[in-house]
Amino acid sequence: MKAIRFKNQSILEVELPKPTLKPGEALVRVLTAGICATDITIFHGYADFKGVPGHEFVGIVEKCPDRPDLVGQRVVADINAGCGRCSPDERHCPNRRVLGIRIQDGAFAEYCAVPASNLYPVPDGIKTRHAAFVEILAAALEISQQIHIKNQNRVGVVGDGCLGLLTAIGLRRYCRNVMLLGRHQEKLSIAKRQGVETFLTYPENAPAEIASQLGLFDIMVDATGTAHGLNWCIPLTRPEGTVVVKTTISERSMIDLATVVVNELAVQGSRCGDMAFAMDFLDNGRIDVEPLIEAVYPFARFREAFSHAMTKGSLKVLLAF
Amino acid sequence: MKAIRFKNQSILEVELPKPTLKPGEALVRVLTAGICATDITIFHGYADFKGVPGHEFVGIVEKCPDRPDLVGQRVVADINAGCGRCSPDERHCPNRRVLGIRIQDGAFAEYCAVPASNLYPVPDGIKTRHAAFVEILAAALEISQQIHIKNQNRVGVVGDGCLGLLTAIGLRRYCRNVMLLGRHQEKLSIAKRQGVETFLTYPENAPAEIASQLGLFDIMVDATGTAHGLNWCIPLTRPEGTVVVKTTISERSMIDLATVVVNELAVQGSRCGDMAFAMDFLDNGRIDVEPLIEAVYPFARFREAFSHAMTKGSLKVLLAF
Repeated sequence: MKAIRFKNQSILEVELPKPTLKPGEALVRVLTAGICATDITIFHGYADFKGVPGHEFVGIVEKCPDRPDLVGQRVVADINAGCGRCSPDERHCPNRRVLGIRIQDGAFAEYCAVPASNLYPVPDGIKTRHAAFVEILAAALEISQQIHIKNQNRVGVVGDGCLGLLTAIGLRRYCRNVMLLGRHQEKLSIAKRQGVETFLTYPENAPAEIASQLGLFDIMVDATGTAHGLNWCIPLTRPEGTVVVKTTISERSMIDLATVVVNELAVQGSRCGDMAFAMDFLDNGRIDVEPLIEAVYPFARFREAFSHAMTKGSLKVLLAF
Repeated sequence: MKAIRFKNQSILEVELPKPTLKPGEALVRVLTAGICATDITIFHGYADFKGVPGHEFVGIVEKCPDRPDLVGQRVVADINAGCGRCSPDERHCPNRRVLGIRIQDGAFAEYCAVPASNLYPVPDGIKTRHAAFVEILAAALEISQQIHIKNQNRVGVVGDGCLGLLTAIGLRRYCRNVMLLGRHQEKLSIAKRQGVETFLTYPENAPAEIASQLGLFDIMVDATGTAHGLNWCIPLTRPEGTVVVKTTISERSMIDLATVVVNELAVQGSRCGDMAFAMDFLDNGRIDVEPLIEAVYPFARFREAFSHAMTKGSLKVLLAF
C-alpha cells in the first residue's frame, strides 16, 4: 500500500505492506484524512516519530476478527491506545500508542490498524469530509469537560486556525460571551457567522493594550500553536481566572510566571477529547465545519497538500483516497 | 522614626516622620518583623517598590480612630488593601496597596499605618515571634483553599526554605502522604519531625531520575523561589495532576509547556492567604514554627540581619524592635 513518512523534514512516499493485525485490532481502509498542525510539528521533529503520520481520518472497516459487526462500517478512531492494564483513561497511559504520533502507524496511508475498541461508527447524517473533523473537534470540546464554564463567563480564544475556530464555536454553545482573537478577517468571519464575537489583532497590538480596550476574560484559551501564545493570554485573564493551553510545540516557552502567581491564575493543559461527544455535537448540527475546509487533495498529491497545509493562514486541508 | 529603604540593591537606614493616618487606618508600633524571600526579590528590583519594605510583622495598635477597641491590642495584618469598591476580594483589586510591596509603606520601620479592617488580634496563647509567621503561613495554607486535596492524595513540595517547610507541614494536616524535597538535610528534619516524608535531592539529580525512584505525585508544589522550580515539578506530576506555583520572581521562566498540555496538568498560581485561618491553625498547635527561626536581630542591626537572611539555606530571620 502507499503511505507517507517524514524524514529530516522531508516527505517520503513509500510502499509498505498492508498492516498485520495485533489481537483486538481492526483493519481500516482510509477514506479521508486531515492534515493537522500537530502533523506539521511532527514533520519538524516533535515527538521524534518515525512511523506513518496522520491521526485525523475517516475510514471503512475491512477486517475485524473481534468485532465482525464493524466490518463495512464507516468509522473514526480515538487515537490513544493504552496498555489496557494500568488505567481506565487510555489517553494518559504512560505506555500508550498514539496513532500517527507515537509508536502506532497513522492514517497517511491507504490502510491503518486500529484497536477495535477505539472505533466510533459515523452516523449516516454526517458527511465523510465532516467526520474527518471529529478528532480535532473532540480536542476543542475537551475544554468544556475539564473546566466549569458558566453561561455568564466571558471566554476568549486566541488563534484563528482550525483549532481556535472549533474551540470558539464549540464553547459558544456553553456560554453567551465567546470572543475569537485572530489576525485573519476572513477566518474570524467563519466564527462570527456561528455566533462568536471577533477581534482582529495586529502583530503590533500588545496584549496589555488589547486588555485595556476589551477588558479581562474569565477564561482564555491559547490556540495559537506558538511558544508565546500563553503570554498573550496571561494579561487578558482576570485574577483567579483560567488560561487553557492547547499548544504543543517542541521548544520550551518563556513564561511570565510571576503574573500567574500574583493573579493566582490556573493554567490548564488540554489535549485530546471524547470522540463520541464530538460526534454527537456534529450530528446534532451544533457546529458547521464545512467553511473550515481549505482544500481537498487526492492522496497521490500529498506533497502539494502538505505544502498547502503549511502555508501560514491555511485552514483544514483534507486528503481523499 | 527609624525605617529602612532599598535603593539600587543597597540598604538605606532612614529617619522618617511617623505615618499620618488616612481614614480607616490604624497606627501600629512594630514589635517583630520577619524577612521574607519576597523582600530579597524586592531588594533585587522585583515590583519596582521604592517605599519601606517589610510585610510579615506583629505590632501593637497605638491609634485607631475608627476602631478604638483595637488600641493596645497585639495584631498581625493582611497586607492587601483594595480600593474597597471593585471587588470583595481585596487581594485581587487592580488598584490595591500591598504593605511593603506596592504603594503602602511596610513594617521595616518603628511604626506603620494599616487599614483597621486588615488587622487581626493575636490570641494570648501565641508568642509574638510565632505570630510573625501568620502571613507566610496563610500563603502556605492558601493552597488548601484553592485546590481539593484528598486524604489519599500524594503531595510533593519542592524547596526546603521557610515557605516550603510551612507548606509541607501545613498540607500534612490535610493528607497522609506529603513529601518535602530539598537540598538541606537539617531543614528536611524540621519537616520530618512534624510528620512529613522527606527526600534529599542533589544538584545533579534530574527530576526525571527522581520520578523513576519516587513515582509520580497527584499534586506538586513549587516553593523553590527559582525560575526553574516549575520544570522540577512538571516531570514529577501524574497526568491530570496539579502543580501549584508559589514562586514570584521578576525574570521570565523557560517552561516545558508541551508536557503540561500532553499530560493535561493544571498549573495553579498561588499567593497570599487567609490570615484568620492561619492564626487559628497556629493557635490550635497544628504546626510548630519555632524550629523555623534562624535568628532574631535587634532592628538596629538590620544590615546584618538582611545579609543573614540572604545567605543561601537560611530560614526565617526575625527583627525585634
